[in-house]
Amino acid sequence: MESAIVLVRCPDRKGLIARITGLVSWLEGNIVTADQYTTSPEGGSFYMRLEFCLEPSRTGWDRIESAFAALSVELQGECRVYRSGVPLRVGILVSRQTHCLADVLFRQSLGELPLQVALVVGNHPDGRALTEHYGVPFHLVPATRDNRAEAEAQILERVSGTTDCLVLARYMQVLTGDFLRAYGRDVINIHHSFLPSFKGARPYEQAWERGVKVIGATAHFVSEGLDEGPIIEQQVLRVSHRDDAEALKRKGRTLEQLALASALEAYARRRVFRHGIRTIVFE
Amino acid sequence: MESAIVLVRCPDRKGLIARITGLVSWLEGNIVTADQYTTSPEGGSFYMRLEFCLEPSRTGWDRIESAFAALSVELQGECRVYRSGVPLRVGILVSRQTHCLADVLFRQSLGELPLQVALVVGNHPDGRALTEHYGVPFHLVPATRDNRAEAEAQILERVSGTTDCLVLARYMQVLTGDFLRAYGRDVINIHHSFLPSFKGARPYEQAWERGVKVIGATAHFVSEGLDEGPIIEQQVLRVSHRDDAEALKRKGRTLEQLALASALEAYARRRVFRHGIRTIVFE
Amino acid sequence: MESAIVLVRCPDRKGLIARITGLVSWLEGNIVTADQYTTSPEGGSFYMRLEFCLEPSRTGWDRIESAFAALSVELQGECRVYRSGVPLRVGILVSRQTHCLADVLFRQSLGELPLQVALVVGNHPDGRALTEHYGVPFHLVPATRDNRAEAEAQILERVSGTTDCLVLARYMQVLTGDFLRAYGRDVINIHHSFLPSFKGARPYEQAWERGVKVIGATAHFVSEGLDEGPIIEQQVLRVSHRDDAEALKRKGRTLEQLALASALEAYARRRVFRHGIRTIVFE
Amino acid sequence: MESAIVLVRCPDRKGLIARITGLVSWLEGNIVTADQYTTSPEGGSFYMRLEFCLEPSRTGWDRIESAFAALSVELQGECRVYRSGVPLRVGILVSRQTHCLADVLFRQSLGELPLQVALVVGNHPDGRALTEHYGVPFHLVPATRDNRAEAEAQILERVSGTTDCLVLARYMQVLTGDFLRAYGRDVINIHHSFLPSFKGARPYEQAWERGVKVIGATAHFVSEGLDEGPIIEQQVLRVSHRDDAEALKRKGRTLEQLALASALEAYARRRVFRHGIRTIVFE
Repeated sequence: MESAIVLVRCPDRKGLIARITGLVSWLEGNIVTADQYTTSPEGGSFYMRLEFCLEPSRTGWDRIESAFAALSVELQGECRVYRSGVPLRVGILVSRQTHCLADVLFRQSLGELPLQVALVVGNHPDGRALTEHYGVPFHLVPATRDNRAEAEAQILERVSGTTDCLVLARYMQVLTGDFLRAYGRDVINIHHSFLPSFKGARPYEQAWERGVKVIGATAHFVSEGLDEGPIIEQQVLRVSHRDDAEALKRKGRTLEQLALASALEAYARRRVFRHGIRTIVFE
Repeated sequence: MESAIVLVRCPDRKGLIARITGLVSWLEGNIVTADQYTTSPEGGSFYMRLEFCLEPSRTGWDRIESAFAALSVELQGECRVYRSGVPLRVGILVSRQTHCLADVLFRQSLGELPLQVALVVGNHPDGRALTEHYGVPFHLVPATRDNRAEAEAQILERVSGTTDCLVLARYMQVLTGDFLRAYGRDVINIHHSFLPSFKGARPYEQAWERGVKVIGATAHFVSEGLDEGPIIEQQVLRVSHRDDAEALKRKGRTLEQLALASALEAYARRRVFRHGIRTIVFE
Repeated sequence: MESAIVLVRCPDRKGLIARITGLVSWLEGNIVTADQYTTSPEGGSFYMRLEFCLEPSRTGWDRIESAFAALSVELQGECRVYRSGVPLRVGILVSRQTHCLADVLFRQSLGELPLQVALVVGNHPDGRALTEHYGVPFHLVPATRDNRAEAEAQILERVSGTTDCLVLARYMQVLTGDFLRAYGRDVINIHHSFLPSFKGARPYEQAWERGVKVIGATAHFVSEGLDEGPIIEQQVLRVSHRDDAEALKRKGRTLEQLALASALEAYARRRVFRHGIRTIVFE
Repeated sequence: MESAIVLVRCPDRKGLIARITGLVSWLEGNIVTADQYTTSPEGGSFYMRLEFCLEPSRTGWDRIESAFAALSVELQGECRVYRSGVPLRVGILVSRQTHCLADVLFRQSLGELPLQVALVVGNHPDGRALTEHYGVPFHLVPATRDNRAEAEAQILERVSGTTDCLVLARYMQVLTGDFLRAYGRDVINIHHSFLPSFKGARPYEQAWERGVKVIGATAHFVSEGLDEGPIIEQQVLRVSHRDDAEALKRKGRTLEQLALASALEAYARRRVFRHGIRTIVFE
C-alpha cells in the first residue's frame, strides 16, 4: 500500500465533498484523513486536503493524476496530487545566527520532518561547520546591499530545480521581487512577532524599553511588497521586567526555532494553503 | 435556511465519506463543515461530524431523519441528526463553591454557549442567589453521605426529562452507579488535573508540598468505577514556589472555569465523541 | 500582629537594601517578602517592595510613618507605607459589554482580590442589574461624544475621594487629559493586544482578515497622549483559521477577563510600579 | 569590577536581610539583584540569593570568603560564595536519544548557558559524532543491567573532580544509591510529566490510549529512592486526538529540550535551592 495527498482549491458549491471523495472511492483509495474549509458561506473559496491509501499495482499513478487533472477542469480550480514517500526538498538561506538552521538540521537528522535539506546558502561562513556535520552542502554567497543582483543570481542558480521551497533561517538580506518571481516557489521567513511595532534594527531592545509582557515569533510566507506575508505559525512566551534585552533575545531565539519547526512540519505535510493575506493550516 | 448537525459513528470501511456526504447532497443540503476521524487504519471506528444548511420547506425534517435512520442500518452504526436551533438543556449540580456555576450562568447570559441552563440543584444554598439572579430555578437537595439514595431520587425527579446532560460544577457528593444508569445521559465533571496523584482531600496543599511547577484542571465524563472518565478538556498554568496553597487554589479555580467552559462549548456544539476511555473532540 | 507594605522608589546607590531593611529591623518588623529591582547598573532607579509583620502595640503606626517619611528625604525618593488590612477602593467604568465587570464583581465576592468595588459608573444601563446583585452602587452617566465635559464632571464628582483608582472595564468613551489630571490617581484600561495594528473599530474582524494565529489582551495604565500607557499584564491564546471573527471576540473576552483580573490583583497587592512607559511587576 | 553570587540557607529569624546585605555593604559590594524566600512564617527556613559587584583590588576574595564563612557560623546555616566568571562544569550522560544532548551542546556553543560541558558519557555511541563536532570529549561506557557496578565505577572515575553536576539527558540506566553517594553532587534528570501515571516503558503510547489533552516534561533532581526527586522545571503543551503516539513522542522531545534547557540555565545561574522534596527557583 502507498499513500497520497490531494490538495483541492476551487470555488465553493454544493456537493463538492461528495464529488471529490467519490472520485477517491472510484480510484479504490481508502481515505485516512480529510480536512476542508470554506472561506465564506456565500461565494467562498473551498479548500480540501485528502490523504488516502491505495494499491498502485491496481490503480496506477498515471490514472490517478489524470483523474485529478480532469477534476481540476470540472471544478474550475486546482487539484494537486503528491505521493507521500517523496520528501520536500528545502533550501535554507542563513546569515550569522544559526539557531534556526541548527534546529532544522537536527530535526531532519531524527527523521522528524518529512523533508530533506537539499543545500544551505550562507552570506557568512558561520553555518558551514554545522551544515557539513550533517552532510548537507553549504555554499558561501557573500551577499550585501551592494552586490544584490549578482548574489541573487548565484543563489538562484543553486536553488532552481534543486529545491521545492526556500527557508530564510535568519537570513538578513532582503530578497528582491525579481528574485521571488524568478524562483517562483514558496519562500518562508521567520522573525519576531512585534510587527508593525519595533521595525528595523534592535527590535528586542525596543520591546524591552516598551516593557512588553509577552514576546513572540512568526513564521510567514514572503510576499513582494509586504513586510509580513501570510502568517503560518506564531509562538509566544510571557516575560517580565526581570528579562533584560539579552534575555528577550535568548527567549526569542527559542521561539523562532519553535515557530519555524512547527511551520515547516505543517508545510512539508502539505497542510498549509495560502488564501490572500492569510493561510489555512489544517492541524 | 436552517442548519443541522449529523453525528456518525460506525465501523470504518472504504467509501464512507463519499457515501455520507453523497446523502447530504441528495437531500439538497450544503455542507458547512465536516470533520472525521478513524481510530485505527485497520479495523478502526469511524467518527464524523457534519454541519449542513438546507431549506426545510424543500426537504422536510421527517425525510432527513428517516434518511439517516436508514443510513444507520446500512453502516451498522449510529447516525444522529440535531437541528441547530435547539439548545442543549443542561442541569447543574453544585455544592458550596460557586465559581464554575457563576461562569456558566454568565456565559449563557451572553449567548456565548449554545445551551440553556434548565435548572440548578445544590446540596447547599450557596448558589441560590446568583442562580435566581439569572432567572434560573434553584432546588435545594441537601445530599450527604447518609441520605444518598433519597437525595439522588429527588435529583433524578428534577432532572429526568428536563435536561439533556448534567454538569457537576464542583459538586462534592459522589453519584452512584444506580443514579448514572437511571439518568442515562452524559454527566460532565470538573476537577484538578493531578490525578492519580494527590487524591482525596486538600489536593492543592499536597501539590504545594510537592513543589509542582504546573497546575491544571480537567473536564471529563463521569464513568462508573473510574476516578476520571474520558477527558474532554485540560487547562494548565505555570506556578512557582511563591504561590502558596491559597494561590494555587485561586489559580485552580480560574483553570476550572476555563476548562469547564471550553468543554461545555465543545459538547453543546456536538463536537465531542466518547470512544472507550478517551474522547475525540473536533475543534 | 499586623502587617504592612512599604514601596520605595529612589535613585540607586550602594547600601540601599541594607539601609531600608535595617530600618525595618529597628522598628522591630519581621520581613515576610522583599523584592527589589534596579533599572540600570549605572545611574538607575531603585524600586523596592517590602512586606513585614509587626506588633503595633509596640511600634505605633505614627512612628512607622514618620520613620519612612524621614527615609524618603534621606534617599531623595519616595517611601510609601500601606497597612495590609485596608482594601483598595476601586471605581469601575463600564459601557455595554459587561464581561470584565462581572468577573471583577464575582472575584471580589469570593474575597479573591484585596480590593473593594466602591461604585460602578455606566454610560449605558447594561451593567446595573449585576452590579446591584452584588450590593454595589451603580450610577448611570450617559456619556457620549457630545456631552463629554458634563459627563466627566459628573463622574469626577462620584469618584473623587471615594476611590483609589479607576478601572475602565470596556468603557468605550475616551477620557480627556483634563479628567485624568483632575482625578489624579491611576486609571487602568483593558483592550485587545493588537495595537498598533488593527486600530479603531472592529479589531477582531481586522485580525481575522489578516489571519493571525495568536490573539491577546493587554491591561495597562491610561496615559494622556498615548494609545497604550505602561503595560501591566498581557494574556495570549492560539487561534486558527477555524475561528471566525465571532470566535475571536468570544475568546478575546475571556482573555480580557484574565488579563484584567491578573493586573488588578497585582495592583491591589501593591506589586506594580510605573517607570516611564513601562512597569515593574513583582510577582 | 567583578561580580559574585552568594547563596544563603539558614533558620529564619528577624533582621536576616539587613544583616546579610549589611555585610555586603561593609565589603563595599554593590547589590545587583537579591531574592529571598521563607518557607513558613513561623519556624521556617530562609533562602537568599544575592548578586553583587565589587572591586577585588579593594576587597580581596579571601576577605569575602572568610566574611561569609563567619556569617555561616553566626546564622547556624550555610553561605556559599561563587565568582561569576567561573562556569559550571557539567557532565552529560546519554543513551540513544540525542535531542537533549544536541540542544545543550548547541546552546553552550552560543554562550547562552553559563556552563561548560566538560564531557559526555554514553552507554551507546549515538551521541559521539555530535559531541565531538562541538569539541567535547565523548566516552563510551556500555552500561547495561548486568554490568552496573563496573560501569558506574568507570563513569565515576571520569566525572569525579572534573564536573560540578551531572545531567541525565535521556540516559536510560538507573543510577544506584552507591553511585549517587560516591559522586556527592547534584544529578539532574529529564523525563515525561505523567508520573505517577504511565510508569515504565512506552509512556506516550499509554498517554495516547488514555486520551490526555496535555503532555509535559519535568526536569528534576535525582534522589535515591524517589521516582522523581525535587522538581526544577515543567513544560506543557496541548495535544488532541489527532496526535498519534508518534506525534506525542515528537512533541515530548521538544518539551524535554525546553524543560532541560530552562532548568539548566536556572541551575547554572545558581537560582535553584533544594528544600526537602521541593525546590525554590528564583526567576
